Amino acid sequence: MKAILKQGATLATALLTVTTLTGCGENSSTQQTVSPAAAEKESYNLRLAHTWPTKFPIFGDAIHNMATMASKMSDGRINITIDSKNKHKAPLGIFDMVKSGQYDMGHSASYYWKGKVSNTLFFTTMPFGMTAPEQYAWRYYGGGQELAEKVYAPHNLITFPGGNTGNQMGGWFQKEINTIEDLQGLKMRIPGFAGEVLAKVGAKPTNIPAGELYTALERGTIDALEWVGPSLDLRMGFHKIAPYYYTGWHEPATELQFLINKEKWASFPADIQEILRVAMRTAAYDMYAQSQHESAKNWASIKTEYPNIQVKSFPTAVLQAMKSANDTLIAERSAADPLAKEIIDSQAAYLSTARAWTKISDQSYFQTVEALK
Amino acid sequence: MKAILKQGATLATALLTVTTLTGCGENSSTQQTVSPAAAEKESYNLRLAHTWPTKFPIFGDAIHNMATMASKMSDGRINITIDSKNKHKAPLGIFDMVKSGQYDMGHSASYYWKGKVSNTLFFTTMPFGMTAPEQYAWRYYGGGQELAEKVYAPHNLITFPGGNTGNQMGGWFQKEINTIEDLQGLKMRIPGFAGEVLAKVGAKPTNIPAGELYTALERGTIDALEWVGPSLDLRMGFHKIAPYYYTGWHEPATELQFLINKEKWASFPADIQEILRVAMRTAAYDMYAQSQHESAKNWASIKTEYPNIQVKSFPTAVLQAMKSANDTLIAERSAADPLAKEIIDSQAAYLSTARAWTKISDQSYFQTVEALK
Repeated sequence: MKAILKQGATLATALLTVTTLTGCGENSSTQQTVSPAAAEKESYNLRLAHTWPTKFPIFGDAIHNMATMASKMSDGRINITIDSKNKHKAPLGIFDMVKSGQYDMGHSASYYWKGKVSNTLFFTTMPFGMTAPEQYAWRYYGGGQELAEKVYAPHNLITFPGGNTGNQMGGWFQKEINTIEDLQGLKMRIPGFAGEVLAKVGAKPTNIPAGELYTALERGTIDALEWVGPSLDLRMGFHKIAPYYYTGWHEPATELQFLINKEKWASFPADIQEILRVAMRTAAYDMYAQSQHESAKNWASIKTEYPNIQVKSFPTAVLQAMKSANDTLIAERSAADPLAKEIIDSQAAYLSTARAWTKISDQSYFQTVEALK
Repeated sequence: MKAILKQGATLATALLTVTTLTGCGENSSTQQTVSPAAAEKESYNLRLAHTWPTKFPIFGDAIHNMATMASKMSDGRINITIDSKNKHKAPLGIFDMVKSGQYDMGHSASYYWKGKVSNTLFFTTMPFGMTAPEQYAWRYYGGGQELAEKVYAPHNLITFPGGNTGNQMGGWFQKEINTIEDLQGLKMRIPGFAGEVLAKVGAKPTNIPAGELYTALERGTIDALEWVGPSLDLRMGFHKIAPYYYTGWHEPATELQFLINKEKWASFPADIQEILRVAMRTAAYDMYAQSQHESAKNWASIKTEYPNIQVKSFPTAVLQAMKSANDTLIAERSAADPLAKEIIDSQAAYLSTARAWTKISDQSYFQTVEALK
């Protein structure tokens, strides 16, 4: 930075302290030291809206991690103001607010927009689908990102992965599920395609934002819910009001999303675009590692601290009915929409190839190691 | 960049084309367009030496990916010259060359230095140890990176993850392994702790750089070798000269490494350090996704294109003998060195907690899905 320091000699002797907005709170700010060179450069101020409550762990950490990396890598030129749903009051309105330019960026989950743009459904996770390592390979090396861009581009939006929760638990239930009849009329919070599968087998799925879930389950507005897994569920307190905790089938690799207004993105120089792209990509991967960590830690605490939680798996007959409903619904979507077909075919072919490798590598390894105990 | 463009008015009308060295070849260069602002800034030129041959796929891609991201994010200020082993002639000399400052950065594998600094052994992968999602969680959220820094700091080095191969195959063998006796005197290329385990059960392990493996196996200098897995093994041609391909036990999550000279690192301003840190971190994660992709793709081709390859798993009795040797060797290291004990205890505790979660999440999911076929 020698050339710049020569030109900005009056600033060369002191570092400036400026206030940048990169916190993950409702609208939080952090103090940061910026070099004199950066203080003379153009700054890029972005406003980000997310779906989650203020100070929401893991998901909020991913946003904060992204904003902090972008700020540091740009020497303070990129400033991202983060508004939680407590501020903007529209947890499921992120798509519209970023599309219109009311916000420059968003953090949410792609499948929340399936009622608006049906093919957004496929870019979070799919029931009976890929796990996180398989899905990242599809997204970045198997054509997934290109398909996501095809879906979002007509809506003035760019979408990037926003953090993976890992394999999710099947949810919290007030009563045991022994047969498919036990799902008839069951009111359950379950978003995405899994919700459609449950509707097909007779349940009544709904989506409810995170901040309202506990009350809905407690008051009987819903009979069951799935949220994430031990990484986040225990902090939500669901185990206090529902005794049964089921293993997963429906969200093997839930990937959140960063959304960016396309015009805003196009207005940035190449280095700022690359800093934002890499910061989002790293924050997403990091969230997967953090989710593994938090899930493992909290899973260990279940047996010691919460001995009353009853961990169950759905009976095979129930899973078979759900798989059959899943396959029928997928075939319907595929027949109705050429772009849906393109995405479905891409995911199905990839899953088949990737799972064959997973089976001979990780899955075979787990069995090998377990046989030696 | 308005302020800078005003000051550098003579440059404001044209973009400059400069040559930056970011290729993954022996010493390759790419043409890049740099803004006038960047052309006036201080540039950071780094020389990187890696262990692999020129144009080596996946491993080389990770290095190139890192250098390209660093160049773009810094608007061309960071220029990384990449020398393959064909240039510097010391594939297993990276540690020393970066320590001494002969090179600023390196790309290799931590366990290659176990004969030099014994505790470097633990930061690649361990037999019967963690898989990649478990190991990234340990590295970044479970104290692993702090332990790695403790091991490398006295040697004037900083180490970062450099890309994960995923679960590796157990290797290529000229004859079938039916009993532990079949391993007696077997000359095998197998590095890291797995090599020590094989020595303990009677084999003769050795490490040989990638470029010399095919010839060594072909000429009978060795009887067997493990390299990576289908992502890289098929291109090496091993299937032409050894019929048996065994599943893995010894390298469940091989993580390569970036090394940086500590004094050089300390000389960089905070934004350049952060750009390099994030570029390395992302390139490492990306290589894991790319490895999954290439492994799956090539695994699929084995059955169609290479029907003569015989895929085998080691018998349980052989694995039990290796696990027993592994545990004995681990206990010896732990007793002999307090820092080794600290790392071993950290990894063992983490594996136990993380695997319990993997079992109820991914592993249970794989079983569930398979039961529905």
